[in-house]
Amino acid sequence: VEYRVRTPPVVRRLMDEYGVRAREAIFRFLPDREPRRYLYDLIAEYPRRGGRCMRPAICIASARAHGAPIEHALATATFVELLHNALLVIDDIQDGSEERRSKPTLHREHGMPVALNVGCTMSILSLVPLLDNVGPCGPHVALALFERAVEVAQLSAEGQALELGWRLENVLDISVGDYLDMVLRKTCAYSTMFPMRAGAIIGGGHTDADPSVIRYAFLVGVAFQIQDDILNLTGDHARYGKEIGGDLLEGKRTLLTIRLMERARGPERRFVEAFFGKPRELKTDAEVARLRELLDRYDCIPYARTIANQFVGAAQHEFSRALERLPPSPDKEFLRGLSTWIIEQT
Amino acid sequence: VEYRVRTPPVVRRLMDEYGVRAREAIFRFLPDREPRRYLYDLIAEYPRRGGRCMRPAICIASARAHGAPIEHALATATFVELLHNALLVIDDIQDGSEERRSKPTLHREHGMPVALNVGCTMSILSLVPLLDNVGPCGPHVALALFERAVEVAQLSAEGQALELGWRLENVLDISVGDYLDMVLRKTCAYSTMFPMRAGAIIGGGHTDADPSVIRYAFLVGVAFQIQDDILNLTGDHARYGKEIGGDLLEGKRTLLTIRLMERARGPERRFVEAFFGKPRELKTDAEVARLRELLDRYDCIPYARTIANQFVGAAQHEFSRALERLPPSPDKEFLRGLSTWIIEQT
Repeated sequence: VEYRVRTPPVVRRLMDEYGVRAREAIFRFLPDREPRRYLYDLIAEYPRRGGRCMRPAICIASARAHGAPIEHALATATFVELLHNALLVIDDIQDGSEERRSKPTLHREHGMPVALNVGCTMSILSLVPLLDNVGPCGPHVALALFERAVEVAQLSAEGQALELGWRLENVLDISVGDYLDMVLRKTCAYSTMFPMRAGAIIGGGHTDADPSVIRYAFLVGVAFQIQDDILNLTGDHARYGKEIGGDLLEGKRTLLTIRLMERARGPERRFVEAFFGKPRELKTDAEVARLRELLDRYDCIPYARTIANQFVGAAQHEFSRALERLPPSPDKEFLRGLSTWIIEQT
Repeated sequence: VEYRVRTPPVVRRLMDEYGVRAREAIFRFLPDREPRRYLYDLIAEYPRRGGRCMRPAICIASARAHGAPIEHALATATFVELLHNALLVIDDIQDGSEERRSKPTLHREHGMPVALNVGCTMSILSLVPLLDNVGPCGPHVALALFERAVEVAQLSAEGQALELGWRLENVLDISVGDYLDMVLRKTCAYSTMFPMRAGAIIGGGHTDADPSVIRYAFLVGVAFQIQDDILNLTGDHARYGKEIGGDLLEGKRTLLTIRLMERARGPERRFVEAFFGKPRELKTDAEVARLRELLDRYDCIPYARTIANQFVGAAQHEFSRALERLPPSPDKEFLRGLSTWIIEQT
């Protein structure tokens, strides 16, 4: 089943519009003081390189769709984008990644110790804007947002720990359920669930959102992660901004590798196990090419696309349960359109 | 001038007593759930290895000396000890340190990616107990404590950035003023100034402490750092729990190296510059021994001891300005005695 729903133009339009507002808020927030050279300039480095600001845009659109003015969502939008950038810096160090947003990763440019200091500082600093929620949202809602924020930072670390554990023990027989549990924690929680939920909290004025809103965001988030895993192999290098095939070098477990392990037998299976058991620097180009061939032979990419499409379908069903009841608005259509926009990324 | 004031026994007694209470609070707080193996067990690892809990003890004693019950200080005490342990994990990675609390450092036991995840998660998690201040202290004081907490985490990262910058550019002609600025940010802010100030805030019920309390804590903090720099060279390995001489291998700038650069000339100076310009792994045992000899030749350790003593004297003067006005109590004597206790550590 492929969902051929064309994403309405409002998604890209609001993504751009809210991205600009979020970016302004982020640069207003970031400290303009010494030490610049080895700290504050570098905290601004990944945000300055670009990025779509998808997470802030979801947060703002959800807040507006639930009735709040954009200004009430900017502090929370700033948090989520800064946390995202902090996690990119930290992940890049952990994975030994080479490129981010079409330039060398921070640790390659400035060394691991400096990049580590930048990433950790950024993740703590990300929470500071949330203090500004007390004014517009009141102390109870502000506290609820703060608790959710720390929770998703923690969930993301749990997802990262699960993934690192699989790599260290070279676990390859992961079920789709294990994979979804990891993706929920590592990606969905802060990338889609928190922004959508926080927006609903800000707009609704209660301390939590309708569970259906959170489920919708989860389903969209899974489709987003699967699409990202596919793009890591098939994407356009300039648009994607990272090494194509980097996930294979880093030994990342994805739906594609799960499918491959379900299908490969005998020497092929042993090759895959040996490949994933090696550190990045010992993997040869020929081995990467062979793994890439095996992924094609067993139709792992079409398999992943199918699953992503199923999540989009489930998301659209979930949308009809709670979000459909929101009054008509461009922001509501943005939230709906997100489900297909996310798998149209190239 | 050496201050031969004997530290009263109440310092050690309350340090032990409050350390036990803080430790209980920390282990009550730490998440008891999956993923244990690569995350939560390891977050508990450095706290489980021991440590004196000096920072929580200062916080609790200051709160009590200012009139609050111990229970009101436990959340803030938990924060400061967890932040401290997070910074130890992170510093150990950045410095390539080998031992911490008499065992291999976390990254040596579990690899850099896992240790990095643990350190960063711990630093964010450390802020969570501060939410519990709302109940006993009210929202305004709780917010003030939270702002100070994030501030010291940020100052510590600034101090770290200054130090990393000196190493990367092999800057050796640092003034004592530069050194004190770095130590204020990296060590004093969270180790002595925050705990003492936070205790005064909790006890006083206002949103800030008397500036003299903060100055006292700064002066004590400097003496603490100088003593630590001396112990890194002269300490007893089992008690100190880290590699003796590790600072020299890591290229750390201390009062001792500042003194050495003031005194060494010609080939000696060039040797010191070359030594500090080398990465850790290229420094031979013979070179470390030669540097150690030069430190002795120019009396760098007695020089540092003299400066530490001067800070103790200044601290005792500062104590007489505001803290002396507190009603008599064992906690007040603990705070006073801290100034000499800190340079009696071996």
